[in-house]
Amino acid sequence: VTSDGYSIGELAARIDADVVGDPNVRITGLGVLGNARAGQLTFLGSPAYRRFLADTRASAVVLTRRDAAGCATNCIVSDNPRLDFARLSQLFDDRPQLPVGRQSTAVVDPSADVPRDASIGQNVVIGARVRLGSGVSIGANCFVGDDCMLGDGTQLMPNVVLYHRVRLGRRCIVHSGSVIGSDGFGFAPDAGGRYETVAQVGGVTIGDDVSVGSCTTIDRGAIEDTVIGNGVKIDNQVQIGHNCIIGDHTLLCGCVGLVGSTRIGRHCVLAGMVGVGSGAGPIEITDGVIVSGLTHVSQSITRPGVYSGGVIFTETRQWKRNALRFNQLDALARRVAELEKRLAAQAGTPENAPDPDDPR
Amino acid sequence: VTSDGYSIGELAARIDADVVGDPNVRITGLGVLGNARAGQLTFLGSPAYRRFLADTRASAVVLTRRDAAGCATNCIVSDNPRLDFARLSQLFDDRPQLPVGRQSTAVVDPSADVPRDASIGQNVVIGARVRLGSGVSIGANCFVGDDCMLGDGTQLMPNVVLYHRVRLGRRCIVHSGSVIGSDGFGFAPDAGGRYETVAQVGGVTIGDDVSVGSCTTIDRGAIEDTVIGNGVKIDNQVQIGHNCIIGDHTLLCGCVGLVGSTRIGRHCVLAGMVGVGSGAGPIEITDGVIVSGLTHVSQSITRPGVYSGGVIFTETRQWKRNALRFNQLDALARRVAELEKRLAAQAGTPENAPDPDDPR
Amino acid sequence: VTSDGYSIGELAARIDADVVGDPNVRITGLGVLGNARAGQLTFLGSPAYRRFLADTRASAVVLTRRDAAGCATNCIVSDNPRLDFARLSQLFDDRPQLPVGRQSTAVVDPSADVPRDASIGQNVVIGARVRLGSGVSIGANCFVGDDCMLGDGTQLMPNVVLYHRVRLGRRCIVHSGSVIGSDGFGFAPDAGGRYETVAQVGGVTIGDDVSVGSCTTIDRGAIEDTVIGNGVKIDNQVQIGHNCIIGDHTLLCGCVGLVGSTRIGRHCVLAGMVGVGSGAGPIEITDGVIVSGLTHVSQSITRPGVYSGGVIFTETRQWKRNALRFNQLDALARRVAELEKRLAAQAGTPENAPDPDDPR
Repeated sequence: VTSDGYSIGELAARIDADVVGDPNVRITGLGVLGNARAGQLTFLGSPAYRRFLADTRASAVVLTRRDAAGCATNCIVSDNPRLDFARLSQLFDDRPQLPVGRQSTAVVDPSADVPRDASIGQNVVIGARVRLGSGVSIGANCFVGDDCMLGDGTQLMPNVVLYHRVRLGRRCIVHSGSVIGSDGFGFAPDAGGRYETVAQVGGVTIGDDVSVGSCTTIDRGAIEDTVIGNGVKIDNQVQIGHNCIIGDHTLLCGCVGLVGSTRIGRHCVLAGMVGVGSGAGPIEITDGVIVSGLTHVSQSITRPGVYSGGVIFTETRQWKRNALRFNQLDALARRVAELEKRLAAQAGTPENAPDPDDPR
Repeated sequence: VTSDGYSIGELAARIDADVVGDPNVRITGLGVLGNARAGQLTFLGSPAYRRFLADTRASAVVLTRRDAAGCATNCIVSDNPRLDFARLSQLFDDRPQLPVGRQSTAVVDPSADVPRDASIGQNVVIGARVRLGSGVSIGANCFVGDDCMLGDGTQLMPNVVLYHRVRLGRRCIVHSGSVIGSDGFGFAPDAGGRYETVAQVGGVTIGDDVSVGSCTTIDRGAIEDTVIGNGVKIDNQVQIGHNCIIGDHTLLCGCVGLVGSTRIGRHCVLAGMVGVGSGAGPIEITDGVIVSGLTHVSQSITRPGVYSGGVIFTETRQWKRNALRFNQLDALARRVAELEKRLAAQAGTPENAPDPDDPR
Repeated sequence: VTSDGYSIGELAARIDADVVGDPNVRITGLGVLGNARAGQLTFLGSPAYRRFLADTRASAVVLTRRDAAGCATNCIVSDNPRLDFARLSQLFDDRPQLPVGRQSTAVVDPSADVPRDASIGQNVVIGARVRLGSGVSIGANCFVGDDCMLGDGTQLMPNVVLYHRVRLGRRCIVHSGSVIGSDGFGFAPDAGGRYETVAQVGGVTIGDDVSVGSCTTIDRGAIEDTVIGNGVKIDNQVQIGHNCIIGDHTLLCGCVGLVGSTRIGRHCVLAGMVGVGSGAGPIEITDGVIVSGLTHVSQSITRPGVYSGGVIFTETRQWKRNALRFNQLDALARRVAELEKRLAAQAGTPENAPDPDDPR
């Protein structure tokens, strides 16, 4: 970000938007609608915050034409304020960039292909036959195993580990503490219940524009590769087992866990702490599925839609009473069926007594 | 800890406690009540262990006056044995300390402010304009990004990553593998379902006396800071999304996950694997709330108290029968209401037939 | 793996198996049954894949005698194809090995005992009095604290942290990003609700043939050690609290979390995201227990068997209706009991009206 920022007119031009107000005012940073100060750009992302428009001190707000009327300051008019604000926000990202070249303590295998415009941080270790694209940036203390490939513009933040034969596409980012390509959890029990290791000889293939959060783990495939599609966004502390296949433009939120060989379609969203897996074999989730937080996806989902599981929390005293009843539910249902039968018998009519096993 | 330890009298004086027995006996280490040996200090933290008092071989036990009578050894009398044992235990902590000064392979930006009494481990990388307080200790292989501030006496254990603009107060400890200040999970979908990154330009502000476990992640704010109050204790593998605000003296146990913008009050306890988040907007938890393990907090909690969710586990065969019934619960409730109506009609009285939607 | 691999006869001899077909054909790699190519070894692990046998292009398949008849290629006959394939797979593991000796940037304390045949990677830091067994391999950027002991053949992958006094047996592997020996989560509240730290002076003792996944955390004991038995296999992102004791040959799958002082028996399997813990004190799980994914084990398990908890997910609309009813379950059960009483009264018989609190 340049020290004197951008004029509102320049910003609007970048997203092909109209300005209501003074296009010459300069924007030097971002703010949230309720607290933004002069010089800051903000946006109206939800009607719930519309009440802040009348007296915001921001220098500009990205909002829909409908909302522009009630706004106390300059407006950048957008059909999709959240998206357009996202695009503009990137101009104000002031994260430090590694200098181009190799820092003094980096150790790079002579067989690695490192372009002149790549940035290699302190204490980085780069293995044999690694190939880095143009503009790649490898943060301090990263380890990049033999035969890895990183596409143009891909960034590893500090303390990332890539095992051997991990391929990342272009413009990816991997945040600190994440590990890609560690062994899948493959063991075969012998007759005595001791576990023999199944060698994990597959790799990991990751598409373009993928984001991987911090302390996330993506295991290498047992034989074939684990595969992450283009545009997939993965949050922190996510665990992806060996040979999972994740479709393009899918979101995996924080702490999601996928058992090995899970397949997830395109444009899915798995909210926080969702777990996917079953003892009965790999699970497949079709395109366009949304799963709400903490749900256990225990079988395949073949239709797009919104899915949930779990229990609604309450005060422990109440919860306990109901939770104990959960473990009597089948008995309770049978008692209800019995009552229905008796009442029907009383009435003397061959009424449609529900089968206790009929889910209705 | 000195090699010859402390006399019981010295220990008691530190916590302003009485001694029953010989104050001159020396204590050189800690033990658990059932196994403690001569020279060791232990405590009675729960009545369940009272049976060990009569023949403990410990040299001293921290316990209440009431329990002193039945104790076979020297006693340090306390109103709160667990707390006083905690205070005394710190005298016997023999963890290795980094030597003061910079280890040979540390790389410190010349603009960083590193006091003479700070300890900087091997392979540490410290960025521009970092300010370290007196007695700060940075373990091997840590990365401290530009413009971070660490208060007096704060310690980073090996392999911690602080991104830029992370501020930690005084006497904090961050355990290995943790990452503070990584990007929040902010993406805006375009019309085609591709995700645009929302720049994360906020920082992280952490108070005094905060403990962060290992492999925990705390994301930087999108625009404003993520904020952790004073005295907050965070266990391992916890995930704290961008712009969360955690009140003073709150405990977040292992594997807790907080969706971005969650607010948690003071003096709360979230037990292991609790997840807080909802698709309907940020959740706020008031002061003094305790949430039991694996609960999904899916809406705000406005009253102090103890809250739970989830299901009580059983043998799979039984569980399955009841779990299938869970998905018929609404139908079952309607059938019960229907039975009630019929019986009331039989009785010929306009009895108070419950509404099927009445939760009673 | 040698470049020209192994003959089928050599492979069969290693596992004491018969060959059906040509024992001289050479195997140079592994494949999955449906996709294997010439030169590859594969196996039939499940009847579901039997259909691939008739036209597999693999050079050999490990399978049972019964299945050999229908196989289009050479067979290695096994009573336990999955186990024997696991054993053979290890011959084809081509993961890079660190060269023997110390890499240029490793920092090893002079008091450490490092045998000549150990491999120490770049930027490794090894503390005082560490003792490494024969053939130990320590990956780049690892930190090994004072007084650690690693048995013969044990491997740390890059970026692992062992705090002081961690003992690992022989032939263990610890994957990247994992932290062993960090402080247990021990705090005692004072009268004002501020937390005092309980010093964690115990260590960690890990047996032989243990595998620890990536980004897994195992805390040191408060006073005595945290103990992991022989042959235990731990997946990624597992959290093991202080003073847990895990029996031999137990499997902890991804994201499992164990509250401090949990005891788990031998030959158990805890599936993904299982959480073990309770506010009421430590939990003990006996030998031979299997717990299915995402179950909350909230009390001790004294009989071997298969256990489950949680709710079966559905479409959110349906789920919500049933989930709301969950919180009325106790009331519903009481209504059913009331109906049963009334019907019994009508019938005029002292029928066995179930007690509403009787779980039947």
